[in-house]
Parts: sequence; C-alpha cells; structure tokens
Amino acid sequence: MERNIYLDLMTIPEAIDKVTAALDRDGLIKQETIPSHEAAGRVLARPVYARTSSPTFHSAAMDGIAVKAASTFAAREGRPIQLVRNRDYIPVNTGNPLPADMDAVIMIEDVIEDTGESVTIEKGAFPMQHVRRIGEDIVATELLLPQNRTLSPYDIGALLSAGIWEVSVWEPVRMTIIPTGDEVLDFTTRPQPKPGQVIESNSQVFMALASTWNCETQRVTPVPDNPEALQKAVDQAIDQGAHVVIVGAGSSAGSKDYSKSVISRMGEVLVHGIAVMPGKPSMLGTVRGRLVVGAPGYPVSAVVCIEELLGPIVAWLSRARVWERPEITVEMARKVPSKLGLEERVRLAIGRVGEKNVAIPLARGAGMITTLTKAHGMTSIPATSEGVEQGATVKARLLVPQAELHQTLLVIGSHDNTVDLLANKLMGLENPLYLASSHVGSMGGLMALKSGSTMIAGAHLFDPETEDYNFPFIRKYLPDMDLIVVNLAIRHQGFIVAPGNPLHITGIKDVIAKQARFVNRQRGAGTRILFDHALKQAGKSPADIVGYDSEEFTHMALAANVLTGAADCGLGIYAAAKALNLDFVPLARERYDLLIPRAHYNDPKIQTLLAMIGQESTRQQIQALGGYETTLTGQIMQPGQGLDATQTS
Amino acid sequence: MERNIYLDLMTIPEAIDKVTAALDRDGLIKQETIPSHEAAGRVLARPVYARTSSPTFHSAAMDGIAVKAASTFAAREGRPIQLVRNRDYIPVNTGNPLPADMDAVIMIEDVIEDTGESVTIEKGAFPMQHVRRIGEDIVATELLLPQNRTLSPYDIGALLSAGIWEVSVWEPVRMTIIPTGDEVLDFTTRPQPKPGQVIESNSQVFMALASTWNCETQRVTPVPDNPEALQKAVDQAIDQGAHVVIVGAGSSAGSKDYSKSVISRMGEVLVHGIAVMPGKPSMLGTVRGRLVVGAPGYPVSAVVCIEELLGPIVAWLSRARVWERPEITVEMARKVPSKLGLEERVRLAIGRVGEKNVAIPLARGAGMITTLTKAHGMTSIPATSEGVEQGATVKARLLVPQAELHQTLLVIGSHDNTVDLLANKLMGLENPLYLASSHVGSMGGLMALKSGSTMIAGAHLFDPETEDYNFPFIRKYLPDMDLIVVNLAIRHQGFIVAPGNPLHITGIKDVIAKQARFVNRQRGAGTRILFDHALKQAGKSPADIVGYDSEEFTHMALAANVLTGAADCGLGIYAAAKALNLDFVPLARERYDLLIPRAHYNDPKIQTLLAMIGQESTRQQIQALGGYETTLTGQIMQPGQGLDATQTS
Repeated sequence: MERNIYLDLMTIPEAIDKVTAALDRDGLIKQETIPSHEAAGRVLARPVYARTSSPTFHSAAMDGIAVKAASTFAAREGRPIQLVRNRDYIPVNTGNPLPADMDAVIMIEDVIEDTGESVTIEKGAFPMQHVRRIGEDIVATELLLPQNRTLSPYDIGALLSAGIWEVSVWEPVRMTIIPTGDEVLDFTTRPQPKPGQVIESNSQVFMALASTWNCETQRVTPVPDNPEALQKAVDQAIDQGAHVVIVGAGSSAGSKDYSKSVISRMGEVLVHGIAVMPGKPSMLGTVRGRLVVGAPGYPVSAVVCIEELLGPIVAWLSRARVWERPEITVEMARKVPSKLGLEERVRLAIGRVGEKNVAIPLARGAGMITTLTKAHGMTSIPATSEGVEQGATVKARLLVPQAELHQTLLVIGSHDNTVDLLANKLMGLENPLYLASSHVGSMGGLMALKSGSTMIAGAHLFDPETEDYNFPFIRKYLPDMDLIVVNLAIRHQGFIVAPGNPLHITGIKDVIAKQARFVNRQRGAGTRILFDHALKQAGKSPADIVGYDSEEFTHMALAANVLTGAADCGLGIYAAAKALNLDFVPLARERYDLLIPRAHYNDPKIQTLLAMIGQESTRQQIQALGGYETTLTGQIMQPGQGLDATQTS
Repeated sequence: MERNIYLDLMTIPEAIDKVTAALDRDGLIKQETIPSHEAAGRVLARPVYARTSSPTFHSAAMDGIAVKAASTFAAREGRPIQLVRNRDYIPVNTGNPLPADMDAVIMIEDVIEDTGESVTIEKGAFPMQHVRRIGEDIVATELLLPQNRTLSPYDIGALLSAGIWEVSVWEPVRMTIIPTGDEVLDFTTRPQPKPGQVIESNSQVFMALASTWNCETQRVTPVPDNPEALQKAVDQAIDQGAHVVIVGAGSSAGSKDYSKSVISRMGEVLVHGIAVMPGKPSMLGTVRGRLVVGAPGYPVSAVVCIEELLGPIVAWLSRARVWERPEITVEMARKVPSKLGLEERVRLAIGRVGEKNVAIPLARGAGMITTLTKAHGMTSIPATSEGVEQGATVKARLLVPQAELHQTLLVIGSHDNTVDLLANKLMGLENPLYLASSHVGSMGGLMALKSGSTMIAGAHLFDPETEDYNFPFIRKYLPDMDLIVVNLAIRHQGFIVAPGNPLHITGIKDVIAKQARFVNRQRGAGTRILFDHALKQAGKSPADIVGYDSEEFTHMALAANVLTGAADCGLGIYAAAKALNLDFVPLARERYDLLIPRAHYNDPKIQTLLAMIGQESTRQQIQALGGYETTLTGQIMQPGQGLDATQTS
C-alpha cells in the first residue's frame, strides 16, 4: 500500500504564520472601485477624505423659530416678550438653513403663544442655540475613514454625506472549491447513495461559511480520485482567477489521497497535518502564488480546517475586521479524556441549570456533522492536557447567541421520539424554547441529575422486583433527591425485525433458536435492562445472543441496522420500526417518564414544557406516532404505580 | 404654524409589544421552497426529517485494513501476528464500506510491516473498532431540524447529507424605503448640496443594516414634502409586496412632517414618539396589514429607530435567530449628564488603558453620523438617571469586535492633522493599530491623563512667561505625574482668511480695526490660549473681537466658517487653510507634543506609534502637509527647551 506521511504536525498559529509569510498579499489581492452605497462590509484600499462638509451651512437643529439671540435676552418666566414674524423671527423646521441675520433657534415647545404673525416666549435664547454649525459632522478634506477600514453600515452614511460616491476597496477573496473522490456523489444530481457512496456536502458548508466572510465562492463538479484530473481542476481554478483553491478531501494518509503529491508537483506544500483533532489532515500550500487548501473529508475536521486555519488567513488576505465568537464559562457535565500532544475541539450542548452554564460533551466522531448542528459551543482541550474532569470549569466559544442559552432546556437521558416531537412543537411558540436532548440512556440521565447537570432527565427504567418504573432506581441512586416524576407516554417495546418478519421471531426463544443476529442498546439504556430482564426470565444469558455486544445509542440507529440487514433484530420502540417501514413484535409496555428536581419544577422553561405536554394536541400527536399510549401523559407519578392509570396525583 | 403633537412617548419594549400584537405574522410572511444549499441564514417554516441515513452503511473510519476482530485477538506487543491479504484483511481507506465478514478496522499507523500480500500487527482489534456505523450521524426519518430553525452553515451540510434537496422556509422580510423631503438630494445623481440641502444617505444605512438581517430591501426615489406623493409611494410599495415600508424623515413635529397624518388616514398609527434619545420622533403604524415605520431624519436617531425598534420586530417577523452585540464593562472618562424621563444612548470611543476599558463619550448631536463611525460602543442612560459621573462603571454594547479594543489607542487632547496622518498610516501595518482621537483641546488632554483615561494626550500649550510648551502646564496640573513628552511636529499657527485675504489682515490690530468677524476655538484649546496671549500682548481684550464667543472644536471646522463666509477669520493651523484653499497669515510657531505617562511608555501600542513617528516617511508626509517643521519630530522634549532643536534627549 502506498501511503503519505504527515509532515511535522504544526499548531494552528504556526501554520497560519508560515502561510501568510509565503503569500504575497499585495500582489494577490488588487484594488477595485465600487459605488459607496454598495460598499458595506468591504475594506477600503485607500483612505477617504471628505469632499463635502456636512452640514454645508448653519442650520436649524430643531423645529421652531429662528431668532436673533440678543433680541430675546429680556424674556423671563412670567415676563414674556412678543416677537414679530419676519422681523424678530422666522419659522424653521429641522434642517432648514439659519436665515440671514438670525443666530439662534427656539424650539417649538418653548413658544407659548403663536398667532401666525407673532409669537410669545418666556425664555431667551443664547447665540447659536439649537443651531447645527457648518461642518459639525464632517469637514471637507478631513480624513473621513482610514485605509484598510472595514466599512460598516454607518460608514456608508458618512461616505454619502461627505459626497463620496465611489470608493477604492480590496477585491473580495475569490475561492474555488473542488470536491474530490470516486465515492462522492454530486448533490446537484439528487443522488441516492449506495454502500460506499456519500453525498458531497462539505463544499456547501464551506461556501456558506465563506460567504459570511464576504468571499466570492464557486464550486466545481466533484473530480475523481485521479492526480491528473485534480491537477487540471486546480490549474483551471487558478486560471479563472481564484485566490484560494480548496480541495475537498484527499489530504489525508489514504492510498487515494493525492492532494499532497499533486500540490507538491504543482507548487509547494507548506503545512501537512496540524496538531488539532478534528482537523489533523489539513494541508496548506501554494501554487502559482495562490493558496491551495487540502481540507479533510470528515465534515467536522473540514469545518475546523476551514474556520480555524483558512478563516484567519482569509481575514488577513481581505484585511477585514473579524468578529469573534463570544466566550463563556461552562461547567462540564461529564469527563472528557483527551490525547496528549494534540489539541482537541469538543462540541458542547450548553444549557442553563440554575445560574450555571452546564455543558454536555457531544459525540466526538469527526464524521458527524450533526454534532455541529446540535452544538451550542465548542471548547478546546490543550495538547498538554489528558482531558477535562467532570465538574471542571472551562471556557467555550459560543456557536449560538448567548441569549439563546437562556431559552434552551437540556433533556438528558434516554432517547425517545416524543422528545423530538416536543422539541419541534416548542420551536413553534411565540417565544421559542430550544429543547436540546442528549442521548446517554436512562441511567445516564439519573447520573446527570445527581451531578446537577440537568433540570430534567428522560428515563424508562423498569425494576423487575417491584414491577415499578424509575422510582426504585431513584431510591437507590438518588436517595437524597426530591424529584417530581411526570409521565410523557407509555410506550411499546418489542423486536424490530425486517418487513414480513422473515425469521418468524415471536419472542426471545426464537431469537436464540434461530441464531438471529441481534443489535443491542448501550449499557445503562432502559431498553437494555428490559432485554436483560426478559433474557433472565427466559433462563438465558447474553452469551446465547448473537451480537449482544454490538451496541447502538438510539432506537432509530438500532432500527437502521435491521433495515439494512446488518442485523436481524433488536429491541426497540414501535415508532422506530414504523418510521423505517419495519415490522414490530411487541414484547412489553413501559413508562417513559421525565424526572425533575423539585428545586427546578417552577423554572419557566420546565413549566412551558409541562404545559406543552398537557395539551390535547400533544397527546394526539404522540398517539399518531404509533406504539404509544397517553393514559398517563402529563400526570405526576407516584411510587408503586406501575402502569396503573387509576392512581393519579 | 400647523404642528403635530407626539402621542404618549413609549419605551422601546412597549412599542415593540404593541406593534407585534397588531401584526398578523402568519398572514404576512408566507412559506417558500428553496434549494437546501442556498438556505444558510434562512428560517425553516417546517420541521425537516431525514430522508437518507448517514452513513448508509458500516464504513471504515480510518485509513488502514479491515479485519475480523476475532482473528486479531492473539496479537501482542513483541508477539506479532501476520495477516494474509483478502483472507484476513482487506486494505481500506476512510469512508470505504466495511467489506463483508469484516467487523473492525486497524489504522495504517498500527500496521508494522506490509509486504502488499500480508501485514504484521502487534495489537488486536476489538469488534467495530474504527468503524462508522450505519446512521451514526443521521438516521432516516428522524427529526433533523425543527421548525423555525435559523439554518447555520453546518445545517446545510446536515440537510444535504440527509438527502434533503429543498426546504420550506419563511420568505424574507421585504422592505421598501421611501426617503422624503424637499431638501433632500438623491445621492444617485451625485449632487452638490447648496445651503438648505442635504444628501440623502439614511436609506443606504438602512439597507446595509437590513441586509445583515437577511431582508430584501429596495429604495425608491425621494418623494417631496407632499401628503399625496407620500400616500402614493406607500401604496405603491405595498402593492409591490413590501412587508415593511420605511418613510425616511417626516415623522417629527415640524410643519412639513406629514408621515403621521398620512399614515393615520391610510391605516393606524400605533406608536408616535419613543422615550429614547436620539430616536424620539420614531413612528410605527400599520397600513393594509403592513408595518409602516416613520424614521427620524437625523442619522443617529434614524439608526436607533431602525436597529432598536424595527430590528426586533423584523427578527420576530422573520423568526430568525438574533445575534446580540457583546456587552462589556467600561469606565467613563467624562461625566455625561442626561435628561430625566428619557432613556439616552451615548456613543463611546473605547480604548484599553492598562487593564481597564476606558470610554470617552462622543459628541451627542443626533445629526452626526460620524459619532457612529467613530464609536466602539454604545451605552444607555436610563430614563430615571440624571447622568453618569466621571469614573463610573457602566455597561456598553460593542459596535466593534472585542479584540479590536486591544489594538485601539486613544489619543485625547488637541486635534491636529498629523494625528489623522498617523491614524491612517497605522492602519497600513501588518497588524493594524486603530488610533482613535478625541478632540477636547490640550487642557482636556491633560485632564484625561490626570484621571487615568488615556495613555497619550496631544497638547500644544504655550506658556508666555517661560516661553516653553506643555511642561509649565504639566508642572501646574499634573505635578505628581511622570510624563514623557515626545514632539510630533512644530506647526505654524496663523489667521485663516478668505482667498486673497480681502480684509488685508496682517495681525491682531487689523482684525480689531476692520471689525473682522472672528471665529474662536473652544475654551481650553491651545490655539485659544495662544490667541489670548497675542491679544494681551497687543493690549487688547476679548471684547474688542467680534465673534470671540463663537467657538469651533477643530481647526477644520473653524476654517470651514471662513470658507463659507460665516466668519472673516480665525486662528488656526496652516494645514486647515490649505486643505480648504484659504489664505493663511502666520502669527506663530508652536510645538505639538504627545504626552505619555512613563508607566505606559513601554506599552506595545505606544511603541508602535513612536516607531511610526520616527520613520523618515512620516516626517516627509508631515512636511508635505505644509505648515509644519519636523526638526524635533520624534524627539523626547525637556523642560525649557521651547523650539530649540539643539537640546535633544
């Protein structure tokens, strides 16, 4: 196998320094002249000096009357004086030029009588009172804005006020994105991926990001894994004027990763490999004076490469002002181990618990774009650290507006589709509530409650001894915690099997007898406890089940295994089977409850959620999902109640 | 005079509540379907459920070899095992589907020998090691993104990965801007304003702001002060589909302010007058279900109306995520009095002095757009407060990136064109330094040093007794302060007179003899002290000077008075006369120095500035301005040195 090797891994600042030192910015980015009123967000290439003053004349700063100040000095409260129109005063509106011989303005509110021919005032004016003087705002010829200024909306007003109709600005950074790979499908063809194929989407993330940097971007049709094709595409992009060429994927160490060899041949590879995860396989080089970026293929790695490595270089090229993401302090809800020697970026779901910002580390796979869509923030673990302990306080860069955190409710614990249903409904409120769910299983939810990391946990823990739900576990693991337990739904758990149930599975005995390939849920998940119980009741053990150790973290992921034939069956909820058009063999009913510390029960977000659960429309929508009963929905549960709907609070 | 009266002034939150309650958002803003890859920044009208899973297959998460985990268990460090190609392993690149019968991947870095036909490993693989499972990122049918989600660049990646090619989004808010006023000039005609005329520029500030909110905006040609014309323009804008119509100016209480009467006749005025300065004359109403905004004419008032009043309403209409401006704590360098009963917005120049953010309140005139272009932040003085004391700590919303404050150097004191020259040059550095100058006169600069509000002050204070500059004043006002005084330039002060010097002014005696209308600088300005000294030397007093009490704050503003004939002469610097093609009658040479506390002398920003002053190119550019000598430029001054260049440090 022919493989690439990484050059020495560089830190991001080292990589940026090396690249900016190698690029000739002045030669690369030219000036252009554009109309001032279209220049917001652009960067001035030359200083601007005012052409016209503003105002160009002394003018009335208020609606009222223009007067000679000296003729008003006698006026006192209780000793009014009268002024005669056109002799002593002239009516003016804001912005009118100060009439000749007048040197002050009295505002209309201070005119106590007005016959149309004369007015009465009780307060004198001082010279130049309420007068906007010549050049008060802008004086012709003065420096209005310096070179390299990123023009704000306000600047546009200043430019036009100063009579500047055109400005010299740096041309926008032009970027061409070349997706590569035999396995990538062009999204514009609306493809249906087969095994081994992926829909190319990174280019569109890059384009959306780059457009926020005011770049001009274009994407070309994906090129196959072929050095000649890649070289041709890079050459063409440069011929057509690209300042930056991004080669999507192909910069890693795989046998089909040609980016490095192609760029080495065409120009110079400056950086290959950065000491950051995700993002490590990033590559930077120059070809014919242009910057060429080899972006990793994994979406999260690609985002780190584009935002953290390319972003600052583009800002430097464009000389534009950079708006940083606000930084906040968060408390880590879980321990995050990290590898020494590499800086790590960890995506975080962040919610307010009392006065704290609590951060739940999201899944760390670089291939999961949804960890970015779900993240509220990102933290960085330094290369010198082996990780962050649970409860540690760290800095996080926000990916959402800070105010949104106050409208975000974290639900930690078992995953259920009814939680997604609520999440969507809550976004329809006049004041939307953002429900962020972290799927760590029912026991994970209890542990999050214990550590104070959440105001609400979803659990469906069945205790075989008492035949009760959740309460026995609360007594055992959270004995000192005063919790209110609200039922969200009774749901059906059963075997999810292929359409038509080809193995004729009717229960655990069939799964074993037919050596059906099973897919399990992760340790701590309520569904797994339920399965273990059923297994024990059947007098069997995990060793009897083929695939007992293969784990999924959600019902849907589990069902997808059955859909694709990767497994024959798994225990899950009806909704997941139905969603993928699979068959379902009921095994049990169980309670899916929400556990809420009494201390948080009156939090407005919790109350909003509970009010939503109490709506008749919510009950109907839960039933429409199938596999649910709503006889207990919204009710506060009591210990020992089991599935009994008669014992209500 | 026919005048409008304001309805009861409302607070901004009251006004927003009243307007959103009156608008039928669902009726106004429709859904539309657009390609997913063009949807960044748009707001989902409906939830999105995944169509395709990602990945759709178990796939290699690393470059390496796919193996059966069980066949590798025996490998240990020092006890390698050999695997045979196509029987025990198959080479894979990241993203390849896991070959049939293989259940784990060993990364290439862990393969210690590779003949092409066989490999050697020293470490076993566990099942599913380095395998991306089906649906790891996205499971078909699951809720991918909820309704009313503002789509991020990352979301675009998730949408395409999930096989979602189109999305239903809320249509953008469409906004039409109608400038009004007989006095406004259409900037598109590149006009030259005459007295009483102003260049219309607010519309372009609005459009630039609204485009950052993802609105579709258009501006129509300004309409004259005529109710029928205004009514026609509003009707036309609504006919053409505007959701929001902004009428520029005309909402105040002047006799030509027709907006209120026109909107009352066409629909309903909901808000007229808000309890905020600037911004008070804002008007909001509805016509045919659309929002009509009467924006004040003054640019700063208009910005407050558009950003603070309309902005939140547009965010509500569009259901979009709102990115707030970061808030920081600043120390006020000067007292700011404020009127009870009105909330006041104060623009601030903010710089770092040591570890503090120091804020200089900028001029408060609502007509000065440059107070916004110069502002780094904005603070709010509540309606219940009579103002903010010097040294008080207040919150300010940032208008610039926070990092920029660390690159901003405040120069407080006397104004000089050489400071602007430096400001522009410093923006050309590889790491630009933002020089923000606040023009409060030389004595104002000394007071700012005294209160610790600045690291550097510009002063040209002449002491007639000692014939020295600045040091006598430092001894008197800052006796305990250890200051380093660096000369920026020697400059010429003289009478600025009309071209050809029509009154033949050669000195103070002519100014008095010819009763020339004089324009003075403000109290505390070094130029004023110089003039008072010359006056005294001539045995004259202020009462002998016509216009002694008329004040300007900068040389350029002073010169503009002469240019337009508002004054016959004023004392100022040569550069200002030259810039406006006026004549100049030299009266004196003086030193313009920079005063720097020793404690700040080694601050990198100060050192950058001093290095810039020391450059030969800077000296040449100062000389090219005219009216300057650079024999002392960049030198550290000593007491008693006066204009003597021989006594260097």
